[in-house]
Amino acid sequence: MNAFTLRDKLRYQPDKMAKVDLVASPRLMTGLNCFEPGQAQKVHAHAGADKLYIVVEGSGEFSVGPEKRRLAAGDLLHVPEQVEHGVVNTGASRLAVLIVIAPNLHKP
Amino acid sequence: MNAFTLRDKLRYQPDKMAKVDLVASPRLMTGLNCFEPGQAQKVHAHAGADKLYIVVEGSGEFSVGPEKRRLAAGDLLHVPEQVEHGVVNTGASRLAVLIVIAPNLHKP
Repeated sequence: MNAFTLRDKLRYQPDKMAKVDLVASPRLMTGLNCFEPGQAQKVHAHAGADKLYIVVEGSGEFSVGPEKRRLAAGDLLHVPEQVEHGVVNTGASRLAVLIVIAPNLHKP
Repeated sequence: MNAFTLRDKLRYQPDKMAKVDLVASPRLMTGLNCFEPGQAQKVHAHAGADKLYIVVEGSGEFSVGPEKRRLAAGDLLHVPEQVEHGVVNTGASRLAVLIVIAPNLHKP
């Protein structure tokens, strides 16, 4: 059974956001993005794939198009394909986010 | 911005598992399945779509093919397309699970 305890998979690194891959199929990929305070994921967009962010621990500032909002553990955000989005850990604590991208643009 | 605080969206009903829709696009759908103690989601499979379960509160017994495992809040489970799966809330507390299905079989 392909199951994970998310808190056991969190990994942080001092120089930049850490990415942890969990599952990849042709239909979706999921993993963790882990941000030390001050770390960011630059604004970008995915052509042909939607994204979900689910905040696992901490909080941060999420941008979708022209909007910005602070989201915290237990919040979910949907980003449609083609829409620019990014994350900044503006807080004093670590931020971990589960991401889901569908379909998987790097089909295994 | 299409964001939700998951704990604010939980909804339970006495007769059967409650479903709460959150997001639907052609590429994915996501929502909550909420189980009172003893409630279940019968074993079923999705042709052409993968599923993720992310446990939001409580714990329950998850089956994937012939395997069964108890998963609790903070755990993630991947079910590939065509594989039979189901959930039973065997515990004494409420169980809430975020589900993601990709692609969306009922394309909006």
